[in-house]
Amino acid sequence: MLKQNHIVIIGGTACGPKAAARARRLDPSAKITIIEQRDNLSTATCGLPYFISGVIEDEGDMIARDTDYFRNVFDMEVLTQTRAISIDRNSHTIETLDLASGKSNTIDYDKLVIATGSTPIVPDWEGKDLDGVFTLTDLPDANAIRSYVQQLETKEIAIIGAGLIGLEMAESFVKQGFNVTVIEALDWLLPKLLDFEVAAYVQKHLQDYGVQLLFGQRVTGLKGDSSGKVSKVITENTEIEAGLVLLSLGIRPNVGIARDAGLTIGTTGGISVNQYLQTSDPDIYAGGDCVENTHLITGGKSLVPMGSTANKHGRIIGTNLTGGSDTFPGVLGTAIAKAFEYNVGRVGLTESEAHQHGYNIVTSLVPGPEYADYYPGGKQILVKLVAEESSGKLLGCQVAGPGEAAKRIDVMATALTLGGTVDDLGDLDLAYAPPYNSAMDPLHNAANVIRNKRDGLARTVTPMEVKGKLDNNEDFVLLDVRGEDEWKLLRFDVPQSRLTPLPELRQRLSELSKDDEIIIFCYTSVRAYQAQRILNGAGFKNVKFMEGSTSAWPYEDYLD
Amino acid sequence: MLKQNHIVIIGGTACGPKAAARARRLDPSAKITIIEQRDNLSTATCGLPYFISGVIEDEGDMIARDTDYFRNVFDMEVLTQTRAISIDRNSHTIETLDLASGKSNTIDYDKLVIATGSTPIVPDWEGKDLDGVFTLTDLPDANAIRSYVQQLETKEIAIIGAGLIGLEMAESFVKQGFNVTVIEALDWLLPKLLDFEVAAYVQKHLQDYGVQLLFGQRVTGLKGDSSGKVSKVITENTEIEAGLVLLSLGIRPNVGIARDAGLTIGTTGGISVNQYLQTSDPDIYAGGDCVENTHLITGGKSLVPMGSTANKHGRIIGTNLTGGSDTFPGVLGTAIAKAFEYNVGRVGLTESEAHQHGYNIVTSLVPGPEYADYYPGGKQILVKLVAEESSGKLLGCQVAGPGEAAKRIDVMATALTLGGTVDDLGDLDLAYAPPYNSAMDPLHNAANVIRNKRDGLARTVTPMEVKGKLDNNEDFVLLDVRGEDEWKLLRFDVPQSRLTPLPELRQRLSELSKDDEIIIFCYTSVRAYQAQRILNGAGFKNVKFMEGSTSAWPYEDYLD
Repeated sequence: MLKQNHIVIIGGTACGPKAAARARRLDPSAKITIIEQRDNLSTATCGLPYFISGVIEDEGDMIARDTDYFRNVFDMEVLTQTRAISIDRNSHTIETLDLASGKSNTIDYDKLVIATGSTPIVPDWEGKDLDGVFTLTDLPDANAIRSYVQQLETKEIAIIGAGLIGLEMAESFVKQGFNVTVIEALDWLLPKLLDFEVAAYVQKHLQDYGVQLLFGQRVTGLKGDSSGKVSKVITENTEIEAGLVLLSLGIRPNVGIARDAGLTIGTTGGISVNQYLQTSDPDIYAGGDCVENTHLITGGKSLVPMGSTANKHGRIIGTNLTGGSDTFPGVLGTAIAKAFEYNVGRVGLTESEAHQHGYNIVTSLVPGPEYADYYPGGKQILVKLVAEESSGKLLGCQVAGPGEAAKRIDVMATALTLGGTVDDLGDLDLAYAPPYNSAMDPLHNAANVIRNKRDGLARTVTPMEVKGKLDNNEDFVLLDVRGEDEWKLLRFDVPQSRLTPLPELRQRLSELSKDDEIIIFCYTSVRAYQAQRILNGAGFKNVKFMEGSTSAWPYEDYLD
Repeated sequence: MLKQNHIVIIGGTACGPKAAARARRLDPSAKITIIEQRDNLSTATCGLPYFISGVIEDEGDMIARDTDYFRNVFDMEVLTQTRAISIDRNSHTIETLDLASGKSNTIDYDKLVIATGSTPIVPDWEGKDLDGVFTLTDLPDANAIRSYVQQLETKEIAIIGAGLIGLEMAESFVKQGFNVTVIEALDWLLPKLLDFEVAAYVQKHLQDYGVQLLFGQRVTGLKGDSSGKVSKVITENTEIEAGLVLLSLGIRPNVGIARDAGLTIGTTGGISVNQYLQTSDPDIYAGGDCVENTHLITGGKSLVPMGSTANKHGRIIGTNLTGGSDTFPGVLGTAIAKAFEYNVGRVGLTESEAHQHGYNIVTSLVPGPEYADYYPGGKQILVKLVAEESSGKLLGCQVAGPGEAAKRIDVMATALTLGGTVDDLGDLDLAYAPPYNSAMDPLHNAANVIRNKRDGLARTVTPMEVKGKLDNNEDFVLLDVRGEDEWKLLRFDVPQSRLTPLPELRQRLSELSKDDEIIIFCYTSVRAYQAQRILNGAGFKNVKFMEGSTSAWPYEDYLD
């Protein structure tokens, strides 16, 4: 008789249970053991910010499947409150610790899965152990934060780190009535996920909701009161009052047990796995937040902890544990977050990431309505598209605004995965009806701007370049081609500014000189591009338009 | 001096104005003339159902750009209320008729664009010219319908043809307080766009809003009252009271002027164009509803009139009119419509279309939540995915339900354009956060069901097959693996039905016989698939699950 295959899985949040369930469906006879140091499997950790804010009311909703379900339906042994301590690869055993009884145990395995997840980064700051200093990874963290805010005597909360968790928690705390300050060492919101001008567009919205944003501020420590509760965040420049401090500085993959067992750790700090999600030991698989992934654009390795990726890993590992040979192609760093009434998403490479990887790129920055502008209720989105200059190959996209963003990010995730170009994107037969889209999707427009730039038709400057010229008091014409009604509501209050509504431009060409440097703008740049072509057609050479126009002006200055 | 290029464009709705504007941006010196038989250019015809219902209040919103705008901004001659009568290709002239004055005119062209659109099909029925019988293509139609319904003395309205316009207008009339009957000669809603089981899912929703649906009913004529107003629709089987009748039987491309000029007309009835959107005369381009398109999946020709396609055509024609050589790859037959609270979309091939084209296919039918089920407010969608059996190449997708559908259709449009497979789809790094999606998108699940079917893991029957077996009183076990609470609310009221909640199944195997044919279902089929694998693992061979389970049961019968 064949020896029964014993599959042991360390980690019970997302990848682990998925691998276990898939393995059971493929192999009814395998023995499967799942080890989890917490009380529950299958916690919906991505929902924690919404559980804290009360949007998700019932704690039971945060557990996708209870432990009995795994036992009864998947016929597996579930060891909760059990920590895996070490792996002995020679003897194919792991040592575990029962956290309740303190007893050690040794478990044989034939195949092992490491799905140990990640841990929030906590710098070695003075005051990091004060009461009221939190990180957020699991349900006990969330419950601790919920309890703490209920007895908080101040309205002031500080969030250190303007990443995804920081952003989601800013909304969560504001909705509970707190004053939130977000402190970030880098220079803008979601600094590793967005380019400046897209981040700035979202920042204005957060500020409208009263969120204080402090960028370029390096935290040096935390201070407490006499009772040991945190009361202040100390930065190089200032001190911020805070009765609760959330550290959201990113995560580190939990690779200790893998490293101690001699498995290869990648340069990113995650466990190194091949396309089968096998570690350097073929009997040991790893998946979820603790591994590094192949980036589908750069081909390099990256750490992108995501529940969606962990689930995909789990399915593949479950297949391969039971004799299959499924492969995981990689990730695009896709991310999305809700920020009050804004949706903020990104996929692939930002402009700055693309530069870092040595691409020669072309971008577009396109504001537009989420659906047909004549259908009521439509809201705006801002699209930034990044492509390779030489080939037109798509490299990345960011979308933000009150309008629909997830659809555009998912379309781009699909196009990037399958190697699409700006021409492919511009011609996509996307679903069109007035309640869902315009005849041209903002992605079509973003692709067409890049096509027009590559063809030498559209000549543009960024808002950042215009800001630089205004700061330097340069001599140029900042030509506003909007209507007078729009100009009355909002305009550039600078001497370079001049209004010539687009329908009058052909008749008023004599007001402009061919020696002038002319930078045109309107509300979204549609009219500005048209004006540029009119001026080019009339023999003006030194003419560009400002991408994004007033819709995407990322500064507080000049425009009011 | 070079002769000035004279571009003449026949048709001013979508493709024509877009081609004209693009040509102007590329060639400042060309002479451009646009000819439109109606009063306005750039009517937002796709918004007409919403203008009729009052969702779009202002008639001005239905005109994207007025005639002066085209003259002033694009420097073109605009001839409205002017009909193009004939083309003389030898002399490069067209003859026009000024509809106001009745005067003819002859216009020279260097390059000509035919963007004449389409006309609703009106069968030669008795009574088709009665008052109160309408089609809907343009703003005058919409205004006529608006006026007519205001003085209507009955609440009864009939719509003949259950296509996209019929569906949108059903909602439009119901929202105005009318009783609507939709009469369709074929057997289900959107019969050329959806497979039966997806259509049936939407039909239930329309019925909930009081829409009467009559399928398989061939109309033979219309009857009027003594004052010449329509009062009844006559079918082969019955008569339906109706004070207003809307004919929405599809469209015919307006190819008369092209055919009379000897240009090639395709087998579909649309003007034949090459990839540059050039007709059989290289100086004459054509685009929009009047041409046939290449279908990106089949490679064949198809008529898919869409404002989105017309706009893309216009850009390409504008480029090529002015010396460029841009190409249009083709269409996927993408469509989406709002049906009350449901969203209904499709792209690529349906199962029946794929069969007609000789593909050997595999499908999946997957209900699922639009986003994380623990995040409040999420609604359901039903996904039907069609792929090639041998290669796993994606062929088409349909999505319907109260939840988000447009995103999934657009992801599929992108995947189909770029030749994606079910493996590509299953591994897509789509944007995940609880307010936007589950860790696994319904498309991931639909792809994985097909992977599981191709791998021999998932064994399924369609609801239609189950209906057939129940109708024939066949002997099999219809195994419900939901919970008792679910069973109390809704169950199959048939002798074959048996309840064994999934968590109890392993303990209750002895209640089933290995000789039984067992068909399993639950609410969405997730548990049913798990149960199938449990039974297979225990040695049961004749076990399948019913795709879509109770969520997608397309009949009124048996389930209550």
